Amino acid sequence: MIYVTRKTHFNAAHRLHNPEKSDEWNQQTFGKCNNHNWHGHNYVLEVTVAGEPDRDTGYVIDLGKLKTIIKKKILDPCDHKNLNLEVPFLENVIPTSENLVKAFYDQLKTDIEKAASNNSRLYSVKLFETERNIAEYCPDRAR
Amino acid sequence: MIYVTRKTHFNAAHRLHNPEKSDEWNQQTFGKCNNHNWHGHNYVLEVTVAGEPDRDTGYVIDLGKLKTIIKKKILDPCDHKNLNLEVPFLENVIPTSENLVKAFYDQLKTDIEKAASNNSRLYSVKLFETERNIAEYCPDRAR
Amino acid sequence: MIYVTRKTHFNAAHRLHNPEKSDEWNQQTFGKCNNHNWHGHNYVLEVTVAGEPDRDTGYVIDLGKLKTIIKKKILDPCDHKNLNLEVPFLENVIPTSENLVKAFYDQLKTDIEKAASNNSRLYSVKLFETERNIAEYCPDRAR
Amino acid sequence: MIYVTRKTHFNAAHRLHNPEKSDEWNQQTFGKCNNHNWHGHNYVLEVTVAGEPDRDTGYVIDLGKLKTIIKKKILDPCDHKNLNLEVPFLENVIPTSENLVKAFYDQLKTDIEKAASNNSRLYSVKLFETERNIAEYCPDRAR
Amino acid sequence: MIYVTRKTHFNAAHRLHNPEKSDEWNQQTFGKCNNHNWHGHNYVLEVTVAGEPDRDTGYVIDLGKLKTIIKKKILDPCDHKNLNLEVPFLENVIPTSENLVKAFYDQLKTDIEKAASNNSRLYSVKLFETERNIAEYCPDRAR
Amino acid sequence: MIYVTRKTHFNAAHRLHNPEKSDEWNQQTFGKCNNHNWHGHNYVLEVTVAGEPDRDTGYVIDLGKLKTIIKKKILDPCDHKNLNLEVPFLENVIPTSENLVKAFYDQLKTDIEKAASNNSRLYSVKLFETERNIAEYCPDRAR
Repeated sequence: MIYVTRKTHFNAAHRLHNPEKSDEWNQQTFGKCNNHNWHGHNYVLEVTVAGEPDRDTGYVIDLGKLKTIIKKKILDPCDHKNLNLEVPFLENVIPTSENLVKAFYDQLKTDIEKAASNNSRLYSVKLFETERNIAEYCPDRAR
Repeated sequence: MIYVTRKTHFNAAHRLHNPEKSDEWNQQTFGKCNNHNWHGHNYVLEVTVAGEPDRDTGYVIDLGKLKTIIKKKILDPCDHKNLNLEVPFLENVIPTSENLVKAFYDQLKTDIEKAASNNSRLYSVKLFETERNIAEYCPDRAR
Repeated sequence: MIYVTRKTHFNAAHRLHNPEKSDEWNQQTFGKCNNHNWHGHNYVLEVTVAGEPDRDTGYVIDLGKLKTIIKKKILDPCDHKNLNLEVPFLENVIPTSENLVKAFYDQLKTDIEKAASNNSRLYSVKLFETERNIAEYCPDRAR
Repeated sequence: MIYVTRKTHFNAAHRLHNPEKSDEWNQQTFGKCNNHNWHGHNYVLEVTVAGEPDRDTGYVIDLGKLKTIIKKKILDPCDHKNLNLEVPFLENVIPTSENLVKAFYDQLKTDIEKAASNNSRLYSVKLFETERNIAEYCPDRAR
Repeated sequence: MIYVTRKTHFNAAHRLHNPEKSDEWNQQTFGKCNNHNWHGHNYVLEVTVAGEPDRDTGYVIDLGKLKTIIKKKILDPCDHKNLNLEVPFLENVIPTSENLVKAFYDQLKTDIEKAASNNSRLYSVKLFETERNIAEYCPDRAR
Repeated sequence: MIYVTRKTHFNAAHRLHNPEKSDEWNQQTFGKCNNHNWHGHNYVLEVTVAGEPDRDTGYVIDLGKLKTIIKKKILDPCDHKNLNLEVPFLENVIPTSENLVKAFYDQLKTDIEKAASNNSRLYSVKLFETERNIAEYCPDRAR
């Protein structure tokens, strides 16, 4: 099994806010991340595909195609956008890094597995909100 | 002459927008950076002080004091904030990196030069909007 | 399963030395890392918690709380300290990176699992002694 | 189980080209990576060994010995070389990152497992072709 | 005076070889960098423009335009190419980093100074051949 | 004028302590950096030489020779050492980054200027004590 990773980046505004809860709850729970005038990040995104290299190409997946899929499914809707207000697939999602990696994984899975060589699978989506705060979704990893 | 640099970071939302111009002009000039719902960055800030080390301490400036000044004058007002709406010293400033480094320099100069050893001066303020886009203000550097 | 990582750093002195062995054995085994006048590192520490995000907060663990636990349990006792002489929980531990990640994991586990959402667990402790030398303890990972 | 990683680097030229296929197929499949005058990379290589630390040394593997093995088996044959023309163990291998990590793993396994402490095993070989394009071979990881 | 920097990257093959000298001289002078089968690098390029921000835009130069100029004048001719054989403006240039930064500066100067705001100038071209080997051309800097 | 930089690294222990002052003064001035059991750092060192490239080689200085000089004059005496106790050229120097860059510059200047091409000069010595705390000595830079 070989793991191939493509690293990309985008910039966006967000705030952590649960609209089903009171302002007091939100302020207490999320602190400065709840600022109603937003803040933002340079997000770094790593997408990993696992599989066997194709015999003719030596590729698990053509990284050019992977780059194109990530651009279409994640960067175009998210880059220089407000993650709470402007991204259709994030509607009703509190944009914590945990929730974002799960949503990004679901966005990417079908297209990537069509483009990869036989039986390769989307393995992991990892998001660096900052260099210090990181989340990863990796549903098939044995605990 | 010895140059001492302290590197810090903060996250903020902004948009590039000149309120004296039309929406069309702004959209055409600033493109996706003009998005009216904001976007944001993990800003990295480097502040450089130039001078001679003090004989007793070996310090041009105590980096702990420099850190405290940067926190009070820049990070507290800017971190997790909206640079267009919430920072008093950025009122009427289009928050390009060029304008930010000039404004940050003016914010920092007096306090830093009081805390530094004899005749040391604030030399440069450098801001990484992203790893790829960088601005620096350095008024005393010979061209 | 979602993996959340917090990255922190501290500086410390250490030497590799097994007091149950002769000086010759130590010098031959550990070379310059055995220097009796110590050397030191800027350690980078990554702590990863695995679990399901809480429905209300979207958090596996509040990274602010995780940061506070790491500070109390690891950074306060270790930062700017001598790992051989001054850290109670490292008594009788040869401070190789391998031994440090195991000791740090044991220090962190209880407090982190109390602060995380339901059933989340401390998954991994990773330590960069330098950018080139890295150790990780991850007891639940299937080999 | 503890995982110890050594990070190294080398520079090399290569091109992606399958000699059993036509020039048209190669150009269409590999694009600019097929350039017949070659291109090159600063490769970064991470080698991870998994095991239990030795009681006397605290080492899973002496990183100095690991460094020496990587130098002899990978860096000496590959550094400042043409991966398509000059590396005996890469003969008939299309030098994609996927194929390189598999070949490097096979080159390293025997020597590393001899040098490591009891029952330690070569766990993973990870190669950064660029900061953005990464491949890893990790045969024992549960999917 | 404000300094604005755009960071980009490209991959290329090269060798250090002076065709006016003997093979022995070249081998002795350039060592493994003279390998006749080439080697290569992930070059990182930083281009810095110095000037006063425009009052309406807050820009010394629109970084989108700077990116386009660097792509057209440097990346398109150099990326995934052989610097000794395939780049017209490097004909008869030994592709050391020192010579490359001078050649890149000359390639970029006219277009950048047309695109920048009043009186802004190309200030510096800096090239990272590796993370450890760096050259910069900066003709107007006072020594 | 072209600037060529070589980046290297070493690990060392130190403490900030002025032996001519009282323990109270030292503790108050240097805080945790004064810890009498030492602490340490992964120092990163950048040495920059300025000059004109040689016509035959395209080099301001052969970076292999520069690497050898830095190893002999700085890394061999300082790596895995205690900077307060074991480095002859740092005797009576309080090892702040400011004092280290000045001392390193004086150590390097003669050998580097002998090895460089005509009229090239040691331009700058820059030391990263951590990623966040940096000092540079650059005596010929116009303020």
